[in-house]
Amino acid sequence: MKYTASEIISVGTELLLGDIINTDAAFLARELAALGIPCYYQSVVGDNPARLQATLKTALSRSDLIFLTGGLGPTADDLTKETAAAVMGKTLVLHEPSYARIRAVLQKRNLPETENQKKQAMLPADAVVFDNDYGTAPGFAMTAQTEDGEKTMILLPGPPRELEPLYTERVRPYLSTATEELFYSLNIGMYGIGEAAVDRVLSDYMENGRNPTVAPYCGEGEVRLRLTSRGKTEEECRALCRRVAEEIRFISCEPYRPGVLNDYIWGIDCESVQEALVKTLRGQHLTISCAESCTGGYVAKRITDIPGASEVLSGSFVTYSEETKKKMVGVKAETLQTHSVYSAEVAKEMALGCRMTVGADIGIGITGVAGVDDAVVTKNGESVTIPAGTVYIACTDGKTTAVERLELSPGRRAPLEAREYVRRRASTHALFMALRMAEKR
Amino acid sequence: MKYTASEIISVGTELLLGDIINTDAAFLARELAALGIPCYYQSVVGDNPARLQATLKTALSRSDLIFLTGGLGPTADDLTKETAAAVMGKTLVLHEPSYARIRAVLQKRNLPETENQKKQAMLPADAVVFDNDYGTAPGFAMTAQTEDGEKTMILLPGPPRELEPLYTERVRPYLSTATEELFYSLNIGMYGIGEAAVDRVLSDYMENGRNPTVAPYCGEGEVRLRLTSRGKTEEECRALCRRVAEEIRFISCEPYRPGVLNDYIWGIDCESVQEALVKTLRGQHLTISCAESCTGGYVAKRITDIPGASEVLSGSFVTYSEETKKKMVGVKAETLQTHSVYSAEVAKEMALGCRMTVGADIGIGITGVAGVDDAVVTKNGESVTIPAGTVYIACTDGKTTAVERLELSPGRRAPLEAREYVRRRASTHALFMALRMAEKR
Repeated sequence: MKYTASEIISVGTELLLGDIINTDAAFLARELAALGIPCYYQSVVGDNPARLQATLKTALSRSDLIFLTGGLGPTADDLTKETAAAVMGKTLVLHEPSYARIRAVLQKRNLPETENQKKQAMLPADAVVFDNDYGTAPGFAMTAQTEDGEKTMILLPGPPRELEPLYTERVRPYLSTATEELFYSLNIGMYGIGEAAVDRVLSDYMENGRNPTVAPYCGEGEVRLRLTSRGKTEEECRALCRRVAEEIRFISCEPYRPGVLNDYIWGIDCESVQEALVKTLRGQHLTISCAESCTGGYVAKRITDIPGASEVLSGSFVTYSEETKKKMVGVKAETLQTHSVYSAEVAKEMALGCRMTVGADIGIGITGVAGVDDAVVTKNGESVTIPAGTVYIACTDGKTTAVERLELSPGRRAPLEAREYVRRRASTHALFMALRMAEKR
Repeated sequence: MKYTASEIISVGTELLLGDIINTDAAFLARELAALGIPCYYQSVVGDNPARLQATLKTALSRSDLIFLTGGLGPTADDLTKETAAAVMGKTLVLHEPSYARIRAVLQKRNLPETENQKKQAMLPADAVVFDNDYGTAPGFAMTAQTEDGEKTMILLPGPPRELEPLYTERVRPYLSTATEELFYSLNIGMYGIGEAAVDRVLSDYMENGRNPTVAPYCGEGEVRLRLTSRGKTEEECRALCRRVAEEIRFISCEPYRPGVLNDYIWGIDCESVQEALVKTLRGQHLTISCAESCTGGYVAKRITDIPGASEVLSGSFVTYSEETKKKMVGVKAETLQTHSVYSAEVAKEMALGCRMTVGADIGIGITGVAGVDDAVVTKNGESVTIPAGTVYIACTDGKTTAVERLELSPGRRAPLEAREYVRRRASTHALFMALRMAEKR
C-alpha cells in the first residue's frame, strides 16, 4: 500500500455553524477504510485562508494522503483550492477542458458566463483532473515533494450529491491505480441478528490481513456486512467476494442465535430490505397489500420507495381506528372484543382482509403500541395493559399465515424518537417476513 | 462574552471509520452559534491517547472553550476523560453521587456491578458534574489555568440521544451562568419560500449585534428561522423573541414572493409541519384522510409520526393503481379516461372519495410521477407524456376543494434520492395545504 496515513479536511463555515451535517467525511472515511488506507484525523475549518493553511500544514506533518472537501465554488470566499495549491507550491492555470465543460453547463442552464466561473477551472498544471458530471467544479489530485516527503491532496466539491458519485466513478479508480491494486466491495444486509453475534460468528473472517476484509455496520436492528477484496482484475476481486459471501451464508450462529447466517440475510448487493422485497416479488410475479395500524403507512411508504413498486403494490390501507379496521379490511367486531385491538388475531384478520380486498398475493397486518406510554384496552370486557413497544405482525399468502409478536424497547430515547424507533423496527420486521414468504412461494 | 473561541473534538474510531455520522458536532456547533460563541474548528480523532493528547494541546493553544464528545464509556479503550484530565493537570477521584446513579441504573437493568463501571464515575475533584438521565456516563466541565490562559473543557457522552438532552437540560444553563446572560431560542418553520428570499426580506434582522439574532436554515423546500435572544431573565428573553416573531409575520416578501412571511409560516416553536397539522386538527376537532398514489403512504406515515394522531386520522389509503383508485376511493373510470391518471380531476376525486369513505372532515388526494423517468399515459385516447416530478395535490373539506400542480425538479440527484426528494416535497406540500384548510375552518 502506497499510503500509510490519510486524513480528511472539510472546509465550510456552514459546517462550523452546524447548518449542515458532515456526511462527506463519513462517506470518505468508509471508502478509505474499504481501501485499507488508515485514516487518523478528520477536521472541519471555515472558509478562512489562515486557519486552513495552519490545518493543512499540520496535516502534511502527519499524513501522506489528504482529502479536502468543499470551497471549490465560484465565489470569492471559496478559497480551498488557492490555499491548498499555495501550501503544495503549485500555481493555478486555466484548465481548458474543465472551462469548456463549465461553459456548456451554464449554456444549458441559460446562465451568463462570468469571470467567477473561470475560477472554478483554474487548476495546478500537473493535476489529475476528475471531471464532475454532477456540478460545475471539477475535483482533482495533486502530488508534491514536501519537506515531510511525497504528499498527495485530493480536492472534491462539498455537496454530497456531487462528491459521492464523483468519488465512486473517478477517485476510487484513481486510488486503485495509485496503489497498483483493484478494490471491490460487496454488501450483505441482515435482519434479526445483532452486531455482537455477527462479530463473534465471523471472527475468523475479520482477522487482519484477510482478503476480502469483512466489516460489520449496524443500525436500527439491521446489520450490514461489507466485504472488500483487492486483486489485479475486477473479475478476480468479484470472485473472491462472491466466494466468501457464499461461505458466510452457511456459518452457524450457535450458540448466540439459532440457525445459520443465511436465515438472517435479506440481500447481497442490495441497498435495503424493501429493495430485496420488491425485487423478489417482481421476480415471482407476486403482489402485496398492507393494513397498517401503528406503522401508519410506513411499510407502504418503504415499498413505494423502490422504482417498479407499482408492479407489486396496487393498494394498501392505514387502518388506525377500530372502525376502519372493520370497515376497510373486514376485521370482525367479535375479534376486537374478545382479543382486543392489540392481538395476534386482529393482526391476522387485517392481513387476510387487505389481501382479499385488494386481490393481492400477500397480505400484511400490523397492530401495536408505538408510543412511549403503555396502552389500556378492553379485552373480553376487562381492562388490560399492553406495554409500549408491543407489536403484532401477521403475514399471509392465503394458505399460510404467520403472526409474530415483537416487544420493542426504545431505550431512553426521547418520545418522538422512541416512536420512530418502534415504527421503523416494526416496518422492517414486516418487510422481512413478507420477503421470506415471497421467497418460499 | 466570556469565551472568545471554542472548538469541538469528537473522539471515536467509529467516526474515523465512517460507521457513524458526526451529528454531535453539528448539534453543538448550532448551539454554540446560538450562544454567540465563535467556533473555528471541529476535529475527529480515534480512541488513541497520543493522538488525542496532541489534538488537545493544539486546541488549548487556540481556543478557550473545548467540547469533547465520546469515549466516556466503561471499557478500556474509552480514554477521553483520562487524557483530557492529564492535559489539564487534573486528578480523577471517585464522584460518589455519580457512582450511586450508575449503580442504580445497573440494578434496574439487572446487570452486575463491575470495576469498569466505577471508571465512569471517576471525575476531577473540582468538576461541575452534569447528571446524565439518559445513560450511565455523566458529563462534566473542568476549568484550569494553563500556559495559554484560563481554559474550560466540557466532556459529554457520544450517543446523540444522551448528548442532546444532557446539553439542553444541563450544559446550556451552565454556559448561560458562566456568561452571566440567559439565552432563549425560538424556531419558526416555513414552507413555499426559499432561503434566498428569506435572507433578503429579513436582512435587517440578520445584521450583527441584533437581539434576538435571526438565522435561517434550509432543507428540502422548508426554511427554518432560529431566533435567539439574550437577556437577564427568561421572561425578558422569551418576550424579545416573541415580539420579533410577531413582527416577522407581517414582513412583506415582495418582490421575491407574493404576500407576507406569515403566508409561508407553518409553525412557531413547532418541530415539523405534520406536528403543526396534527395540533391544529386536534384543536379544531377535525379529522383527515388521504388517498395517496405517488407518495405511497408518506403523508399518512408523517401524520402518524405525531403522538395523538389517532384523534385526527382513523383511516387512509394508498391507491397506487387505477384499479384501486376506482375501487377504494371511487374515482370514476370516465375521469381516468378523459383526464388521465395524472390530472387535477383525478386528484380531486381521490380527495373527495377518501374523505367520504372514511367519514373525515378533510380529504387529500395525491397523484403524480415520482420517478426520474417521464410517464406516458393515455388521455382521451391519445398518448401524452407527463414529465417526472409532476404531482397533483387536492385538498377538500367537502365544500371547497383546492388542487395544486407541482413541477418538482430533483436536479442531478441519483434515481433513488430523486424519488425520495419528489415524494418528500409532495408530502410536505400536501401537509401544508391541509394545515391551511384546517386553520380556515
